[in-house]
Amino acid sequence: MTRTEPNRSPKSDSENSGNGGGGGTTAMRVIVPLQGVVQGRGGLFLGSVIPCAFFYFLQFYLKRNRKNEPDRNPDSEDSNSGSPDPTRSQSVGNLTELTSLPRSLSRILLSPRISGGAVSVSGRAGFVIKGGDSPYHVGQKRVEEDPYDESGNPDGVIELGSAQNVKFNLEDDWVSENPREVISDGLCMSGIASYEPSHGLMELKMAVAGFMSEATKNSVSFDPSQLVLTSGAASAIEILSFCLADSGNAFLVPTPCSPGYDRDVKWRTGVDLIHVPCRSADNFNISMLVLDRAFYQAKKRGVRIRGIIISNPWNPTGTLLSRENLYALLDFARERNIHIISNEIFAGAVHGEGGGGEFASMAEVVDTEENVDKERVHIIYDLSKDLSFPGLRTAAIYSFNDNVLSASRKLTKLSPVSSPTQHLLVSAISSPKFVQRFVKTNRERLMRIYTELVKGLKELGIECTRSNGGLFCWVDMRGLMSSYSEKGEIELWNKLLKIGKINVIPGSCCHCIEPGWFRVCFSNLSERDVSVVMNRIRKVCESCKSQH
Amino acid sequence: MTRTEPNRSPKSDSENSGNGGGGGTTAMRVIVPLQGVVQGRGGLFLGSVIPCAFFYFLQFYLKRNRKNEPDRNPDSEDSNSGSPDPTRSQSVGNLTELTSLPRSLSRILLSPRISGGAVSVSGRAGFVIKGGDSPYHVGQKRVEEDPYDESGNPDGVIELGSAQNVKFNLEDDWVSENPREVISDGLCMSGIASYEPSHGLMELKMAVAGFMSEATKNSVSFDPSQLVLTSGAASAIEILSFCLADSGNAFLVPTPCSPGYDRDVKWRTGVDLIHVPCRSADNFNISMLVLDRAFYQAKKRGVRIRGIIISNPWNPTGTLLSRENLYALLDFARERNIHIISNEIFAGAVHGEGGGGEFASMAEVVDTEENVDKERVHIIYDLSKDLSFPGLRTAAIYSFNDNVLSASRKLTKLSPVSSPTQHLLVSAISSPKFVQRFVKTNRERLMRIYTELVKGLKELGIECTRSNGGLFCWVDMRGLMSSYSEKGEIELWNKLLKIGKINVIPGSCCHCIEPGWFRVCFSNLSERDVSVVMNRIRKVCESCKSQH
Repeated sequence: MTRTEPNRSPKSDSENSGNGGGGGTTAMRVIVPLQGVVQGRGGLFLGSVIPCAFFYFLQFYLKRNRKNEPDRNPDSEDSNSGSPDPTRSQSVGNLTELTSLPRSLSRILLSPRISGGAVSVSGRAGFVIKGGDSPYHVGQKRVEEDPYDESGNPDGVIELGSAQNVKFNLEDDWVSENPREVISDGLCMSGIASYEPSHGLMELKMAVAGFMSEATKNSVSFDPSQLVLTSGAASAIEILSFCLADSGNAFLVPTPCSPGYDRDVKWRTGVDLIHVPCRSADNFNISMLVLDRAFYQAKKRGVRIRGIIISNPWNPTGTLLSRENLYALLDFARERNIHIISNEIFAGAVHGEGGGGEFASMAEVVDTEENVDKERVHIIYDLSKDLSFPGLRTAAIYSFNDNVLSASRKLTKLSPVSSPTQHLLVSAISSPKFVQRFVKTNRERLMRIYTELVKGLKELGIECTRSNGGLFCWVDMRGLMSSYSEKGEIELWNKLLKIGKINVIPGSCCHCIEPGWFRVCFSNLSERDVSVVMNRIRKVCESCKSQH
Repeated sequence: MTRTEPNRSPKSDSENSGNGGGGGTTAMRVIVPLQGVVQGRGGLFLGSVIPCAFFYFLQFYLKRNRKNEPDRNPDSEDSNSGSPDPTRSQSVGNLTELTSLPRSLSRILLSPRISGGAVSVSGRAGFVIKGGDSPYHVGQKRVEEDPYDESGNPDGVIELGSAQNVKFNLEDDWVSENPREVISDGLCMSGIASYEPSHGLMELKMAVAGFMSEATKNSVSFDPSQLVLTSGAASAIEILSFCLADSGNAFLVPTPCSPGYDRDVKWRTGVDLIHVPCRSADNFNISMLVLDRAFYQAKKRGVRIRGIIISNPWNPTGTLLSRENLYALLDFARERNIHIISNEIFAGAVHGEGGGGEFASMAEVVDTEENVDKERVHIIYDLSKDLSFPGLRTAAIYSFNDNVLSASRKLTKLSPVSSPTQHLLVSAISSPKFVQRFVKTNRERLMRIYTELVKGLKELGIECTRSNGGLFCWVDMRGLMSSYSEKGEIELWNKLLKIGKINVIPGSCCHCIEPGWFRVCFSNLSERDVSVVMNRIRKVCESCKSQH
């Protein structure tokens, strides 16, 4: 992670940026006046040999100097960082004195034990602390403070921001059919009382493979040994980022994208995201042309692209990538020698295949075509999302690359799935009959709510992109904005939160470059809730119109 | 879908890649013969102006070219990585042709979709893959393959390497007294079915604070709001490393230290560890003088030290740090303006306070003395260790620094404790009576086994350092080595594993600079097992003596 190109210090970069380059101009600044001196006396020979010799030695000197330069920490945003400071020699002086004192005496002399200076944290911690005040987090906080409850708190904030599927399991008969004793069947003490594989018990991997097959309509047969379980999808994406890219490298991400990537990919890995905008005019489809351009522009800037992150069903638009799309992406990845991370955490939430499009997992495409470069394909599934139990915090990496699997397995020690959760999952998803029924019922319910929501919005004159999967729809509220800008979008989002008391995700959190689009998660709603939401949005519409 | 043509031919890359730092030497190769030509005709003026002009333009040209250069990956250790290769220009040629073809046709032409070159992973993934073949991991694998079982597999390998406390809960009456129904009492569906705070429910934090108070003999009252729960101690240490240090910074670690730090601190953070050796002659006590020296040597090399990691009870020696030690460390941290990470994951496993020393938590020291710089103190507890349920994978950061708490809370999204595990823990440790009894019984049992083991080893002529805490003792087997070297140590470790069929941790895994010391975890043993272990060690002793 440390900068391995220490040959050029940041300082000499900025010095050079204006002129010829390479340190040569510094040499020229010496050579030119020198030639003037020489001209008077030495004639042709000295006039050419002396500058050349000078130039040689200067280059040599500059090059050596640049190599020896101590590496200054490139990541630190903190001005207090460890680079040599003027107070240094002084504190060394203190030490020399102190070492000659008995330790206990030095303590008394130095008391009180409190120091004047502030205790600094790392630069990246500062970044993490700041990162989290986006509407995405502000909205979540509002919901926590004042959550809607039909009877208990009917004026509370309705959560349409978080992609979870709470209502399903609470309404469904699964819980009543599978009482606590059955669910905790797997909670044997020997399992809890010892370390079990942090990347997942084989028993659980087999159950997960079965579940994933069901979620992808048995179009693929998953190999349990290619699975690595992690504590949640965020951790799975982070582990893949670590495995595929080094600090300073980047991934391409078509936008709008999941609002979580900034955290999962960037916070700790030092990897950057290069957003590749998709537009409403193209129905938010990925343009290979724009992808290519982004790739070469990054390359020009000296950024190495290590992969592309796609999501299918697409978060936040809810669209499905066609097989043709997937092939084009595979071609692109092969030609540019990069990886593909296919985020399929909503594979179990495909609900609208009848209407248009059909879900195809990257695993299926890779599986059915023999001549495919499997080793660059890595898929993410989310058991908690698919099972509608986000509290389980269990996701999976499915990769065809042995190195990635090997490194990921080891890295799960840093974000393991606990034994109780593993056993709970085994007992929950080991029955094919249950899994089958579960996936089917979940899909039907999502379809019903989605249809209701879209219908309701249409009545208010609000359109959505056509969704076929995921727990959300991608809603076009451009008509309600007071100004066509990010500011207008945030104003509208604020109105939705304050006047409408609904929490949605503004497109800017998903890095959508067109203002006015919002991600609305409908999975949290019951069918009855939809009309409440519509009434609230109507209120906002009216307030907007009165202001126009 | 069409493709853009890459902005530049990659060919010039390989042309540039050969020259030194500045591109200046290429310029010189042109200038020198040119001066020879000019000498014949132009005289003084041309002899100096033409090379200078040439030099200027060449530098200019080279610099522009360098900017366009596709990035060479600075971090990659892999020669197959995405850097320019000779086959590149060809594929660009193909691409240009392809853009005019319909996509489906181009797919056929490009088939097979498999590329010749290897798909490279990140440099750090390579490091992770390699890191893990130490005796620490090899021994664990052997145990997995052939685990000892008194009746089922009496010739199997006995696990004395992993610091877990399996037998306790299986022998104890806790399980029989608290049947499955009680344990899973907290597993309410609404908890699992929605996101709960990844850094821990307040209910759980309060229970944990109570448990920690009991484990530290009620000498401290812990503030639940200063707790951040993480999925295991490894994750807690990693999160603290991210929060306190930037990539390229380092922590001081007195050695011998926990074998896990290489993974927890270094793998993903880019933070380095500077080992500060403690010696058997000093009874493995920390020398403040040596610490100071290490600090300034690192500073001299331009490495910024951000903190010191200590463990108390000390892993692997099992000793306790005195209050005097803790004050000295606090002084040191204040004087050098660094943090202290106090790893107290074995606080619940203090067993020998009567014999010598008394456990003092850093939290207690910081709490009782007013003039202490609290903000640089961060403590790690391990619920799974203390409760002897490693499978729970739940640990806690206890910090006095609001920035660290704030960043850590956010980072737990990347290694959350799942809801079932949180509820399970709440239901397990909410009863003060249970916790009290648990901690007491656990300590007594550890004390018994420890005494047995030390006595047995003494009879074989093998000494240990005096331990008062932890699940292990630190055994001096220097007398059994064929040569006093790391090689000799690993040879002995191999004999213990192959002849004695016991897995222990060689000191080199704990970065001990003196060969011949081993960490032996006794908590996995029943009292009956101790004699089996002694017989096996005796066998190894005899084999060693016969070879001498």
